Amino acid sequence: MGEKGERTREKIRCKAYGLFAEKGFQAVTMTDICERTGLSRGGLYRYYSGTEQIFSEILSEEYVISDRIERKERAGAILEDMLEAIRAEILDKERSLSLAIYEYANLGNEDFFTDLNEKAKKRWISLIQYGIETGEFKKVDPEQAAELILYYYQGLRMWSRVISFDGQTAEHYVRTVRQMLVEG
Amino acid sequence: MGEKGERTREKIRCKAYGLFAEKGFQAVTMTDICERTGLSRGGLYRYYSGTEQIFSEILSEEYVISDRIERKERAGAILEDMLEAIRAEILDKERSLSLAIYEYANLGNEDFFTDLNEKAKKRWISLIQYGIETGEFKKVDPEQAAELILYYYQGLRMWSRVISFDGQTAEHYVRTVRQMLVEG
Repeated sequence: MGEKGERTREKIRCKAYGLFAEKGFQAVTMTDICERTGLSRGGLYRYYSGTEQIFSEILSEEYVISDRIERKERAGAILEDMLEAIRAEILDKERSLSLAIYEYANLGNEDFFTDLNEKAKKRWISLIQYGIETGEFKKVDPEQAAELILYYYQGLRMWSRVISFDGQTAEHYVRTVRQMLVEG
Repeated sequence: MGEKGERTREKIRCKAYGLFAEKGFQAVTMTDICERTGLSRGGLYRYYSGTEQIFSEILSEEYVISDRIERKERAGAILEDMLEAIRAEILDKERSLSLAIYEYANLGNEDFFTDLNEKAKKRWISLIQYGIETGEFKKVDPEQAAELILYYYQGLRMWSRVISFDGQTAEHYVRTVRQMLVEG
């Protein structure tokens, strides 16, 4: 697929993201996505076979950090960028995919999520280990620290749809992770 | 309502808990609860006006700690009991109410959950402050610590329906909370 095709796929994912955040997974149809993107049915199906494929690709888009570690950027700088992205997500209630994720997960996609979860955990563990090696991070248990970072975030993300968080809640998260890895 | 009435209400909540954990909130009917409890329709409605009332009462049942603080029990002992209860819950995948909670929350019960969340937070803050006062706990920011405890747990609980956690994941949670409040 050429560059134009890639751009169209990206546009589809971006528009579909908004729909999934609004309605959850099951209520969104390919017709909704046609309407939102302005693509014809035939046009949309040239790129994606169904909402499952679009949704699983959205979830698989990752914040890539392995390149930054290879380039030997400072672990603290990578951490701060990731925390900044997370802070923005926590505060962006409207764009939470957690309802959609939850519905999708409960449709029996256990393996997909186990895999996704493992990847996210490995990504964090690799950053934490890298930071410990360079002496920037404290000598924490990388797996234990990665789980805190992931599940604390998931809990916040889940509840941010329901409860209005103020900036302080996001700030507490960021501070907790920083204190665990860097400060004190 | 007399003691027998209270016992019946408790039985209803207990059986309904199992149904909500299995099916979520919306799929459970009063008829299901009649079948599970063996009560007649008239019998059930004498105690509860609908599934909403039963579910919100289940969620409002709390692990009471104010009595233990008043009796001046050791903060560390109260903490350990709470962590033990949480550990058991994390591992008890079948009894997770998180799908039901999520459905119920997304039906527009924001105020109810904001209130529930505030209460849980206050409970933890009171224990943490008490532990700091008695010199048993480290001088953490009580609100920040309470949020970690709550949302990290919620994230785990949400995912425990989807991903099979091993005992280590629960152990990491317990260890993180202990390290934050007591050790080191």
